[in-house]
This record gives sequence, structure tokens and C-alpha cells, in this order.
Amino acid sequence: MDISSRIKHTNLKPEATPADIEQLCREAIAHRFGAVCVNSSYVALARNVLVGSDVHISCVVGFPLGAATTAAKAAEAAGAVQQGAAEIDMVMAIGRAKAGDWAYVTDDIHQVVRAAAPQAVKVILETGLLTDEEKDQACQAAVAAGAAFVKTSTGFGHGGATVADVQRMARAVRGRARIKASGGIRDFKTAAAMIAAGADRLGTSSGVAIVEGAHRDGE
Amino acid sequence: MDISSRIKHTNLKPEATPADIEQLCREAIAHRFGAVCVNSSYVALARNVLVGSDVHISCVVGFPLGAATTAAKAAEAAGAVQQGAAEIDMVMAIGRAKAGDWAYVTDDIHQVVRAAAPQAVKVILETGLLTDEEKDQACQAAVAAGAAFVKTSTGFGHGGATVADVQRMARAVRGRARIKASGGIRDFKTAAAMIAAGADRLGTSSGVAIVEGAHRDGE
Repeated sequence: MDISSRIKHTNLKPEATPADIEQLCREAIAHRFGAVCVNSSYVALARNVLVGSDVHISCVVGFPLGAATTAAKAAEAAGAVQQGAAEIDMVMAIGRAKAGDWAYVTDDIHQVVRAAAPQAVKVILETGLLTDEEKDQACQAAVAAGAAFVKTSTGFGHGGATVADVQRMARAVRGRARIKASGGIRDFKTAAAMIAAGADRLGTSSGVAIVEGAHRDGE
Repeated sequence: MDISSRIKHTNLKPEATPADIEQLCREAIAHRFGAVCVNSSYVALARNVLVGSDVHISCVVGFPLGAATTAAKAAEAAGAVQQGAAEIDMVMAIGRAKAGDWAYVTDDIHQVVRAAAPQAVKVILETGLLTDEEKDQACQAAVAAGAAFVKTSTGFGHGGATVADVQRMARAVRGRARIKASGGIRDFKTAAAMIAAGADRLGTSSGVAIVEGAHRDGE
């Protein structure tokens, strides 16, 4: 199981300094992680450190509340792509989903997909705030809007990825989008369980610990 | 002590629905709060509910991490003002402050001040993540950049307002900006202590409980 390339090495802390982000990028190169995941104000810096490497840049948008206007999300996505982001991880309009306004949710995603094109968009559902039915409907909205991935969680205080949610999302998208598990993935065993459940990618700030566990436990 | 008009009745939860925001606005009218504070995707809705009232709309920007690009923050602020926000509550670029890059921090604020003009900008420092010296320097940066207020906290997981921080910020700005205390203000006693320490405004999601406490304890 090649776990390294599926890992998005992540630092989204508000207090992360430029030096912290440089270290994140250097670790990603050293451990051959697939990507780093950063806030939009650090995309240009990450690009400078990662130039010439195979490590991609994921940038979060409307993060972590998902409650910015669609226009603000789209502008942040377009700017991030222009500065070198290969993937956009946007947070769904959670409040509109809770209200059943799936037309709003779908359009919000679609506008970001358009702004980020041709780069891929992942939609963070924040599963910890949704009912099972809302998780299914959110997956349908993401697929309808042209998202490449659905992603479980922001990792900011509303629960993390669960095996049950990853399985549920895989059933809902039926191959029309891929799955990223994120939030609370801190060791090799959890990472392997998420991949077994159907996760194509893992968002984690514990990437180094996970690959060290993989080497120890037999990757 | 007129506490009601200083209260910003706040709902920034990611799962807040349009119905929740309508209720927030109706409560603000009923209790004569000075303002509501909402995420940018709810400014237009709040304006529709509040039309004809004296309740202002505050909109958060780059919230709660402060780690979006300056351009994204400025675009979100401009859009919010266009839709009816009277005040912008932006989060400072905390990571750049931790790195001592005060030129970045100041420019980040200044660009939002320009985008929001003529409306006022408050700068959320997230004091729980800063040293005392960084709090002082952040106040100087906010004043230099033309902000109208400095504000203690986002209320999202990094500690809230303290009397000591409000006093410190009041000393640092020396009348050149006003002070907003926010984060963890849930009763009348705490609210009164913040005002005594120098807070001109109070951000709280417990506005109704506070004014009911004021009526009980003798406003």
C-alpha cells in the first residue's frame, strides 16, 4: 500500500509562520508526500519552496466555516490557482445545506469549480455537522457541480473522518468523484483503515508519523 | 450603563441557517442591540430583515484564521459593504505577526480598510495566540493602517477576551482606535467588566442573556 503519495501534508493553523510552511514543504519533499495543504496566503511561498519537486499544492478556500459569499470563495480560488495551487479544497455552504437549500449549495460549488478550472476542486462537507441524509445529498450536489473530490472534514472542531462516513460517501458518489478523508488521522492504522474504506487521499498534519508507522508496521 | 447598544449580537456558526440569521436579526431589533455580526454569505439576508431599523450589520472577513490572501480579504470586504455591511471585522494575518513581519500585517489591514471605505474596519488580533509584545505591535499596526477598532478574539478556540488584554490594548492605541472585546462574554458581570476596562463594544452570542442580566442586576 503506497501511503506516502496519498498524504496531503497539512498546516492550516492561524499562527503558522512562513518558516513553518517552508518546513512543511521540505518535509513533503523528503517523505515524497503527494501534496501540501495550506491557507491561501501561503500558496506563493509554498510554490517557491516546491519548485522542481513533484509535490503539488492544495489550497483551502472559505475555510473552515464555508460561510463566505460564493463570490469571495471564487475569488480566493482563482487567486490561489494563479499563484500555483493545483487543487482547491473548498468548504461547502453548510448552513444552506442544513436548511435544505441544495440549489444554493450546488451553485456555490459550481462557481468555485469554474473559478479554479482547469484545476480540481474538493468539497469539504464537514460531516460532523450533517445527518446521514445530508451527507448523501451533499455528495450529489458536489458531483452535479463538477467537483473532483468530496472530503469529510475541516479538522477544526466538528469531528473528523470516520470509516462509516468514508464508506457512505463512496456509495453516494459511485465513482463520479473521489474521496478524501481528513480530520483526526494521526497514525498509520487509521490511515490504512480510511484507504480500505475507499479514501483516495488523506489530509493530515501527522504525515511524518504515519509514514514512519508504515515503515515500522510493514507498508 | 447602556449595555444594549454596545452589544453586537453574533452568530458565526458554520451550520447557521437562514432561519437562524433571521432570528438573530429579530432579536437584535427587539433588544435594541447596536448591531448583528454575521458571516459574509448572510449580509444580504440580514439587510433585508433589518431594513428600517437602527441595527447595523457587521461582517467578518478572512474569518476565523486570518490566513487568506490580502486580495481575498479585500474582495470579501468590498462585497460585504456593497451588500449592506456597515462594519468589517477582519482577522489579522496572525502567522505573519508571529514571524514579526509587521509590514505584511499592516499592508494586509490597509488593503481591507481601502476596500471597505467609507465603512469602519475592526482588526481581530486573536490575543490568545499572541505575546504581550505582539499585542502591542498589532495595535500599532492596526492604527497605522487606518483601522477604527482593535478587537480581542474570534471566539473560535484560541481563548477569549480578558480584562488585562482590553486594558493593554486601550493603553496601546491611546485613543487612536476603539476597543471591541469578544470571545467568552456570556453574562452581564463579564460584559460590565470589559466596558470598565475600556471596551467600547462587545461581541457576543449571549446578548439576550446579558441584557436580561442587566435588567435583573440593575442596569
